[in-house]
Amino acid sequence: MTGFDLLTFGEALVSLRSAGPLATGGALTMHLAGAESNVAIGLARLGHRTAWAGRVSDDELGRYVLRQLRAEGVDVDHVTRDPERPAGLMFLERRTADLTRVGYHRAGSAGSALHVDDLRPALAAGTRILHLTGITPALSETAREASRWAAETASRAGALVCLDVNHRARLWSRDDARAVLSPLAGYASVLVASADELDLVGEAGADEATVVAGLLDRGVETVLVKLGGDGARAYTRDGVRHAPALPVTAVDTVGAGDAFTAGYLSGHLDGLDLAGRLRRAVTLGAFAVAGHGDWEALPRRDELSLLDDLQPGSTLR
Amino acid sequence: MTGFDLLTFGEALVSLRSAGPLATGGALTMHLAGAESNVAIGLARLGHRTAWAGRVSDDELGRYVLRQLRAEGVDVDHVTRDPERPAGLMFLERRTADLTRVGYHRAGSAGSALHVDDLRPALAAGTRILHLTGITPALSETAREASRWAAETASRAGALVCLDVNHRARLWSRDDARAVLSPLAGYASVLVASADELDLVGEAGADEATVVAGLLDRGVETVLVKLGGDGARAYTRDGVRHAPALPVTAVDTVGAGDAFTAGYLSGHLDGLDLAGRLRRAVTLGAFAVAGHGDWEALPRRDELSLLDDLQPGSTLR
Amino acid sequence: MTGFDLLTFGEALVSLRSAGPLATGGALTMHLAGAESNVAIGLARLGHRTAWAGRVSDDELGRYVLRQLRAEGVDVDHVTRDPERPAGLMFLERRTADLTRVGYHRAGSAGSALHVDDLRPALAAGTRILHLTGITPALSETAREASRWAAETASRAGALVCLDVNHRARLWSRDDARAVLSPLAGYASVLVASADELDLVGEAGADEATVVAGLLDRGVETVLVKLGGDGARAYTRDGVRHAPALPVTAVDTVGAGDAFTAGYLSGHLDGLDLAGRLRRAVTLGAFAVAGHGDWEALPRRDELSLLDDLQPGSTLR
Amino acid sequence: MTGFDLLTFGEALVSLRSAGPLATGGALTMHLAGAESNVAIGLARLGHRTAWAGRVSDDELGRYVLRQLRAEGVDVDHVTRDPERPAGLMFLERRTADLTRVGYHRAGSAGSALHVDDLRPALAAGTRILHLTGITPALSETAREASRWAAETASRAGALVCLDVNHRARLWSRDDARAVLSPLAGYASVLVASADELDLVGEAGADEATVVAGLLDRGVETVLVKLGGDGARAYTRDGVRHAPALPVTAVDTVGAGDAFTAGYLSGHLDGLDLAGRLRRAVTLGAFAVAGHGDWEALPRRDELSLLDDLQPGSTLR
Amino acid sequence: MTGFDLLTFGEALVSLRSAGPLATGGALTMHLAGAESNVAIGLARLGHRTAWAGRVSDDELGRYVLRQLRAEGVDVDHVTRDPERPAGLMFLERRTADLTRVGYHRAGSAGSALHVDDLRPALAAGTRILHLTGITPALSETAREASRWAAETASRAGALVCLDVNHRARLWSRDDARAVLSPLAGYASVLVASADELDLVGEAGADEATVVAGLLDRGVETVLVKLGGDGARAYTRDGVRHAPALPVTAVDTVGAGDAFTAGYLSGHLDGLDLAGRLRRAVTLGAFAVAGHGDWEALPRRDELSLLDDLQPGSTLR
Amino acid sequence: MTGFDLLTFGEALVSLRSAGPLATGGALTMHLAGAESNVAIGLARLGHRTAWAGRVSDDELGRYVLRQLRAEGVDVDHVTRDPERPAGLMFLERRTADLTRVGYHRAGSAGSALHVDDLRPALAAGTRILHLTGITPALSETAREASRWAAETASRAGALVCLDVNHRARLWSRDDARAVLSPLAGYASVLVASADELDLVGEAGADEATVVAGLLDRGVETVLVKLGGDGARAYTRDGVRHAPALPVTAVDTVGAGDAFTAGYLSGHLDGLDLAGRLRRAVTLGAFAVAGHGDWEALPRRDELSLLDDLQPGSTLR
Repeated sequence: MTGFDLLTFGEALVSLRSAGPLATGGALTMHLAGAESNVAIGLARLGHRTAWAGRVSDDELGRYVLRQLRAEGVDVDHVTRDPERPAGLMFLERRTADLTRVGYHRAGSAGSALHVDDLRPALAAGTRILHLTGITPALSETAREASRWAAETASRAGALVCLDVNHRARLWSRDDARAVLSPLAGYASVLVASADELDLVGEAGADEATVVAGLLDRGVETVLVKLGGDGARAYTRDGVRHAPALPVTAVDTVGAGDAFTAGYLSGHLDGLDLAGRLRRAVTLGAFAVAGHGDWEALPRRDELSLLDDLQPGSTLR
Repeated sequence: MTGFDLLTFGEALVSLRSAGPLATGGALTMHLAGAESNVAIGLARLGHRTAWAGRVSDDELGRYVLRQLRAEGVDVDHVTRDPERPAGLMFLERRTADLTRVGYHRAGSAGSALHVDDLRPALAAGTRILHLTGITPALSETAREASRWAAETASRAGALVCLDVNHRARLWSRDDARAVLSPLAGYASVLVASADELDLVGEAGADEATVVAGLLDRGVETVLVKLGGDGARAYTRDGVRHAPALPVTAVDTVGAGDAFTAGYLSGHLDGLDLAGRLRRAVTLGAFAVAGHGDWEALPRRDELSLLDDLQPGSTLR
Repeated sequence: MTGFDLLTFGEALVSLRSAGPLATGGALTMHLAGAESNVAIGLARLGHRTAWAGRVSDDELGRYVLRQLRAEGVDVDHVTRDPERPAGLMFLERRTADLTRVGYHRAGSAGSALHVDDLRPALAAGTRILHLTGITPALSETAREASRWAAETASRAGALVCLDVNHRARLWSRDDARAVLSPLAGYASVLVASADELDLVGEAGADEATVVAGLLDRGVETVLVKLGGDGARAYTRDGVRHAPALPVTAVDTVGAGDAFTAGYLSGHLDGLDLAGRLRRAVTLGAFAVAGHGDWEALPRRDELSLLDDLQPGSTLR
Repeated sequence: MTGFDLLTFGEALVSLRSAGPLATGGALTMHLAGAESNVAIGLARLGHRTAWAGRVSDDELGRYVLRQLRAEGVDVDHVTRDPERPAGLMFLERRTADLTRVGYHRAGSAGSALHVDDLRPALAAGTRILHLTGITPALSETAREASRWAAETASRAGALVCLDVNHRARLWSRDDARAVLSPLAGYASVLVASADELDLVGEAGADEATVVAGLLDRGVETVLVKLGGDGARAYTRDGVRHAPALPVTAVDTVGAGDAFTAGYLSGHLDGLDLAGRLRRAVTLGAFAVAGHGDWEALPRRDELSLLDDLQPGSTLR
Repeated sequence: MTGFDLLTFGEALVSLRSAGPLATGGALTMHLAGAESNVAIGLARLGHRTAWAGRVSDDELGRYVLRQLRAEGVDVDHVTRDPERPAGLMFLERRTADLTRVGYHRAGSAGSALHVDDLRPALAAGTRILHLTGITPALSETAREASRWAAETASRAGALVCLDVNHRARLWSRDDARAVLSPLAGYASVLVASADELDLVGEAGADEATVVAGLLDRGVETVLVKLGGDGARAYTRDGVRHAPALPVTAVDTVGAGDAFTAGYLSGHLDGLDLAGRLRRAVTLGAFAVAGHGDWEALPRRDELSLLDDLQPGSTLR
Repeated sequence: MTGFDLLTFGEALVSLRSAGPLATGGALTMHLAGAESNVAIGLARLGHRTAWAGRVSDDELGRYVLRQLRAEGVDVDHVTRDPERPAGLMFLERRTADLTRVGYHRAGSAGSALHVDDLRPALAAGTRILHLTGITPALSETAREASRWAAETASRAGALVCLDVNHRARLWSRDDARAVLSPLAGYASVLVASADELDLVGEAGADEATVVAGLLDRGVETVLVKLGGDGARAYTRDGVRHAPALPVTAVDTVGAGDAFTAGYLSGHLDGLDLAGRLRRAVTLGAFAVAGHGDWEALPRRDELSLLDDLQPGSTLR
């Protein structure tokens, strides 16, 4: 069998990070960003065969995106190059020590023009897991249809479908999101959300227990509720399990949720039990927050235990 | 009435400069870019009362643009802030020692949504010179109409109108440009073009002499033909005059044409004769190419003679 | 009436910041520094019409100072350029994580040569508030007289006078400072000091209550005592009110006091009551300490609530 | 048939570039270096299926090497990771404007431990071209045997073998080099050398004509003599052809020879005639010298004509 | 002539520090590293006459090492330049906020080839203290013999010998280390170790009390047990004394142990009692952890009290 | 007597270099600058025993100066630390590719307060050469007297005195300079000047031949006239000799004259004949202009022949 361990798709952005205030100018550094590509990299670093699909601009910025994904060992053979549309961009500014501010330039981007046809070849190659997020259906009509089609197709083909709600308030309203994501959740085996996103895959305003119950009823096998510094809760038909976060010094929380998801799915691919999957999930989350960048600090397989029993200021000689 | 010495308008872009290849990532530096803002800064540095009008995004990048213009003493009181549209961006990459490559992200930008109403207050304040370029009418229908309206209004009010053809092949075809710019040239007292742009304000394929004759017939008083390292030619009813470029080491030619125009118009405001105006034009052009950046190296009034009789490697102690 | 909302004056320095130890060399970054210019920028960012007066060197560093102030929208039309004297400089070195060390090169600087005549035009334009600090009278005899003259003139013209004690031990002794500042406080409606500076506007060694009582007796309406991480106390004839600091991660405390004062005065200009003025004061103080630089992190009006209910590691998407 | 268009092998180094003098410290930038990997990247950028084989350290630096090669689309599936030996390093210092100085730390490196067994899987996959250099056999006994074995095996399998002499005087003497490289040349269809390296594949001290005649007699089909700024000469049984260098501004000559070879081999893979192959060879050489880095400036297929008829200071908008 | 206050020897490395992950490339900064040179600098900064001996590469990197030591006032007149062997290198990567990872390239380095003859001239010059670490004997046979010879020679000459155990697990096993270091401790008056290193100078697995008792029995006068953030314990025949660490914000713990030792030995040279020596030891340790770099933040004599009663965010104006 | 090969004195400045325009801010790099310290470093790099005397500020910047000189092996044991006065500074801005602009902050600096007493200990140590420049006597009355005293004292003690005219027009007028320097030249064996400085040690307006004749008459043995890119002329009683400059790519001419003088004096110390001294002089000048910085690119003894027969773009592997 040739297929992938995990296939994911969405928009990969070029993130321009500014150390100081954007309005006063200064140096920017380029980074690859994107909830789905973060997950893909997280799994590729752990040795899983991982592919990312989507649409990139056919210019230097699109090539930058592909260079980064290839460098990380993520398969990009099925990526579409769009000669008409520009790369999606984001500006990331450290506004204060506690507050990061993001500005998007993604309307009309290559990534937002994702179409069902862009995903056919990658899905045809086969995959054990299909991962998608609630960002992609918010990008455009065609991206919405592509998301639905991919979830349905993978689900029918027996792949585990994982949906991370990932609500982006600047892209659509909670009501619009719910109308799309709630049906989409029906294809998912694993549903990931932060506590305040949960009712986007249930009734508006419903509490956690009610939403989770509904999801389990609809066939979702695992509901993962991300709690930031408090770790996560995992609901299955067998009940709920809480995993605390690892005690690390947090320097950059962007990408922590994607790392958590990548860790969980890696545990699934390795056949770990729920406790083991959650342990790996919070481990990857810890790496993500303890280092700079959305994904740059994620661990390779031989590094998974680096943060265990760590004293601040440790040196590994 | 006090009014401005020079009013100009158009799109000011945030230029992101990469020292090395964009596709391999790395640090970018932010700069203000825009043919018209370059001219405005060139004149403001020489002490002329200068204003720039246009539409900027109402976010950190728009604020960056305004900060830079204010820092240079360019009046931005009549700038419109657009809460809906993003800043126009350009990526500038030094592809090789001899070749700079530019990529634009300006479709749908705040600047491209320029409207007649954005220009009314600034024009109402009065100006001795109105400067516009052939870039602005290529941005959108409303920007085209705004350009025409401003040229007509200023011309009627007795201001000197200066039009720099500045053809941007990625924005429109030569035929489309000619259909708009040729009538626009009818409002101009000063017409600036490079040699290969001249027939965009005349018959397609017409030679320099023919186009110039036609322009002078239509009332243009001075036609300036930019020749890069060979300096410039100025045509008036009295004939043609050639001004050689100053012998400097060129390190960055971007913005040289705008500097040339700024120098010429400064000479006009100072009441210099044609020879003096051309001398100042090539002087500013020399500063532009001898320093890095689109406008950063432009001289203040006390620096105008710095490049005269300069030996390479001079030190001013 | 055309005047300013706030006029302030003093010495604006070029601050050269070193990331590591100065003695081992390395890169320095240039910044605008100065207690009064910090206050001017704080108010300009909030949309108040603000002017800064003083004397700058007529060279590239003086132009740097003016560029920065203009960029921030602070009026510098009444600044004097001194062709004889150099810019005042300061070197700022992060000695350890907890200790910043400053070295001054300001003796004989343009700024220290401030003279009454430098302030006449700006004061003639009118202002609602005149802000001055105890640094300026320490710079020179003429600067002392200029400070006194300005306080008296503005006070007579009905402007609110605000005096921030700001004792600089390297410029003068506590006794010398007291001899000058105590009379100066007589012109002030608002007096700002840290707890250990209070007796510089009262009897040497007097306790807070005694000094405050004396000041209120002498006509000061509000005495603000800055308490660093503990917030501030405000005394009026109606009693005392404490405002706690906002709970943010502090990364750079330089400029925090100036931000506090700017916030208070902005509240005054907006007609807020004492509680509202204090709230804005501690808010600006929080921005100042939560970001790098003396003033770079100060908020615009639309950002005033950004730090409310903030979790560490928040991302504003 | 799946195989590669080109397979190459050798040592890939981590190059640490210093902008100023190394002895005074300062910042270093990391780059991938290696004559063979330069050629692999040159071909991969032009769209050829390219693989690099060799031995890399099993640490962060080895991973850096693999990341860079993967990013450029070079297949590294058959690379051996050596858990015992460190990465080979080089320090590259711009000693003066005209002189670059290189220091190597490669003795005992992972790359120098190359063994026949490291190359078996890659060669088994099949390739149209095998490229090797005279550096590899100088690294160690096992690397020497691996080079010979690979050349013989590929030659027998019908692949075109290309040998670039690339004498490294610090690794071995001219006599030692000749004793190994001269027999190795017997397997080559294409032999590349600079003029002063030619007698390392012939008699010591023999002139160009004599060495070339000998090589052609021994079955080499094409002898390419690199002439730096003067272009190159190509000898075949049909005679000699000279290709002038493209007129570009040279800023970094490191890697120019490898670029030349990559261009030639790309022309071969595309079925170009000798003139076309040489044209592509000097074109890639021109890109290499006109940009910074060993390979970073090499062109993609759509960029091949960028340097044609280029004026200094051109801008591609 | 009395010679040096302190002589130390060992391997000085060029440390290449990466701000982010090494595997993704990026800028590196050069630093001098080495436990013994750290101690030498710590003492030289406090005004003691200090010398460092050892073997450095005769290339730019070796010159960098000497430049740094000379800059700090450490005598390097007796350093041997090795024309054959390269500089020892280390790569230091901030893996996460809490974890620094070090990779060494020191096998076969100039420093590891240290020989008795390299130390004769420096020892002949005379010294009050000889400091050595357990790293040097792990480098090579000759370095081991040189360490033993120097300890014995200095001890006989009446110098105080200080041995810091400094176990490097990558260089040798605990058993191998114990076999060498335990006899070496017999020459020492001062023995420094972290708690988990103590049994390397005693019986394997012995507890602290037992090892200390044994050392005191064998003639060691003071045993210093470094406890990181908990300070240190000092054992003498008179009993045990604990010194708490100074309360500072730790940003870089590398070099803290060497700073501690330097402080202790400086106190000895100044004739302080045990409490005073420990106070200086933890003071230097506090400087080391409160600033970046292995030694860059160490204090000069006039700075020794800077951290006393320090509030976070203090500014020394 | 041990003494120095060369002793020099003057003001060493901290030079702050800006890559772009100073007025727009941006990063500065710190460098040691000073005509005399440049000469001292030039000789120290060639292995001569060299000392620099003068007065430095007793702060971080003064320590920076001493660190740099010590790093280069220049003896600074006789330097005076001035607790009252600040370091002299200069800002160096690359205004255009061909023009460097320098701004000084040296009035009232520690260096300018040089006093005879500061030089007594160094001169007492003995020296083969005393080197001084025409900058020092322009700094203050006491520095003038110190210069005269040192020249007289060294001359009487049999040292070769070298005077480089080095006119600084911002420090004093040509007439003032002549009144001081012309008598000072009477102590010199070697007189160095650029062509337009020559009449500062002769009659105002006198031509080269006349001035040189007068100097030789007054006992000067060698008059060196620096001609920039044209090399230099050396006059002795035996006639005149011209030394052409080495053909290198010039990137930074600052410090070239000092390098030239250092080369000449090194040749003298090595006992070379005039041709050899001039050859070394132009060689050091070539290194200075071919690399960045005032002295950073100067050669060590083993590098003296690096620029011989150099092709642009050479790589020393």
